[in-house]
Amino acid sequence: MGEFELIARHLAPLSRGEPGALGLTDDAAWLDVAAGHVVVATKDAMVAERHFFADDPPEAIARKLLRVNLSDLAAMGARPRAYLLALALTREHAGDWLTSFVHGLAQDQKTFGVTLIGGDTVATPGPVTISLTLLGEAVQDRLLPRHGARPGDRIWVSGTIGDAALALEHCYGRLKIDDPADNAFLQERRMLPTPRVDLGQRLPGLAHAAIDISDGLVADLGHICETSRVAAVVEADRVPLSQAGRRAIAGDEQRLVTALTGGDDYELLFTAPEAATKALDEISAELDLALTAIGRIEAGRGVRVVAPDGHELSCRGGGHVHF
Amino acid sequence: MGEFELIARHLAPLSRGEPGALGLTDDAAWLDVAAGHVVVATKDAMVAERHFFADDPPEAIARKLLRVNLSDLAAMGARPRAYLLALALTREHAGDWLTSFVHGLAQDQKTFGVTLIGGDTVATPGPVTISLTLLGEAVQDRLLPRHGARPGDRIWVSGTIGDAALALEHCYGRLKIDDPADNAFLQERRMLPTPRVDLGQRLPGLAHAAIDISDGLVADLGHICETSRVAAVVEADRVPLSQAGRRAIAGDEQRLVTALTGGDDYELLFTAPEAATKALDEISAELDLALTAIGRIEAGRGVRVVAPDGHELSCRGGGHVHF
Repeated sequence: MGEFELIARHLAPLSRGEPGALGLTDDAAWLDVAAGHVVVATKDAMVAERHFFADDPPEAIARKLLRVNLSDLAAMGARPRAYLLALALTREHAGDWLTSFVHGLAQDQKTFGVTLIGGDTVATPGPVTISLTLLGEAVQDRLLPRHGARPGDRIWVSGTIGDAALALEHCYGRLKIDDPADNAFLQERRMLPTPRVDLGQRLPGLAHAAIDISDGLVADLGHICETSRVAAVVEADRVPLSQAGRRAIAGDEQRLVTALTGGDDYELLFTAPEAATKALDEISAELDLALTAIGRIEAGRGVRVVAPDGHELSCRGGGHVHF
Repeated sequence: MGEFELIARHLAPLSRGEPGALGLTDDAAWLDVAAGHVVVATKDAMVAERHFFADDPPEAIARKLLRVNLSDLAAMGARPRAYLLALALTREHAGDWLTSFVHGLAQDQKTFGVTLIGGDTVATPGPVTISLTLLGEAVQDRLLPRHGARPGDRIWVSGTIGDAALALEHCYGRLKIDDPADNAFLQERRMLPTPRVDLGQRLPGLAHAAIDISDGLVADLGHICETSRVAAVVEADRVPLSQAGRRAIAGDEQRLVTALTGGDDYELLFTAPEAATKALDEISAELDLALTAIGRIEAGRGVRVVAPDGHELSCRGGGHVHF
């Protein structure tokens, strides 16, 4: 199959409804941005066997790639609009695998209101390597920064923490999750994160700093602290866990540390002054999304995670290192 | 080396001067677009041993990747602004190779006035796979389309055609280029194309349709004809060749066909009414860039290339097929 046939058959249908996509018949696309808004852009890449298992369902791989990018835009408070996709595929992946992959994208395009507008499709001997650039828009002075955290801010997270990391421990055989329903829930959280796009757009004006949790709660809170030149104290027992996550941890501190440092949550982590608490509780109710205060920003440097008895959990070495 | 250290050391310096790049410390970036303008986006991917030789100088690989994207924006008539880069590197490429690669980007950032604003760096067992998303801006109703060619239009090309294709024939041992200076010239044209960014921005209002020649003159003219629902006749002896290209072809019709179908020229191919000729000649003089009328758009379908004696050259099978 030629590149043009592949694009026309598989990818062009994903561009419908966005005039600037030009039906993917051009090498470039255009996108109108609302007056007074800036473009917000993010780009993530995934390599088979590094970022997903080769036998993960192709729909799930596609949706995860789109969702991790959506999560990056959510952390900026931006509204997602359109994306470009670079696919380096082997010959075997250019058939049914691609059909399923595209099906996953189509599903999530509807859910999140984004459209494919361009990209490139090339051949590789493998591993399959995919990169996605997501474009969105926001008012520039309402972008959520990373560097705005101030002493006295509360530290908040959305949803529950550690599900994906615990699921991965199970995949690697390092943690046994007995209950099949629990494992199914945690694996779903690993393969199909829920980017907090609506929440992100509600936070400008309330949050001082925000990030999405991809490297792990402790590492990403560390990024906020570094760029904001502040310290953070997290109360370990306040970190929200799913029921399945709580059962998998079963009171084991090392597993709790895995949950706090493991990454791939794609929840939003943000800091906000005390005065924002009521508004955040209202947003939580409105979006039907748990928002939990887990600690406090202080003067100083570094992140400490403290147990109820006052001892500090050892959370060093968090965050992904690739080389 | 960790991903963050790699970004801080190698890539962050490329983001200087663009406030929305946030020093590459965030997962997303913002870019202001001039009032009344749309964003224009393009994305190309390259895989080692498919799109470049693994022992090509890393600077040249970087510059070519940036330049093929610049060429796509040039064909839209857009002004390039900023880019995002996804690097899937092996451990061996994360050192000196990357230093040289970045050096190439830095050189071309100056030449073309673009800045790195984001991306992703991931590990791969190989082959090295790189994708670049280039963002630019243009006034929407002054974008150059592919579908606007009309019967009676002249067909124009910038620069010279076939240099990269002839160079590649030499690399594969299928064509011997005796003169070292000729080979050096042609290899330079293969490795370091010159995107016609200034020309592209001068064509709106003059050209009816435009494309950059990446798949080969005949195939890319075919794209214009298909989307415009017209036919094209090219006069083979009017196609501009470099002196080195002319010597490599040496009157051999098969080699001329290689030049016309081989691709990777990254020259602009456009159609314009007779009345635009004087303005185009002035632009050519102003930019010190050859613009050559090589044929004519007609009613009908398909592309024909005709020799001076009237016989038609057999140019089928042009264009890249990847799968």
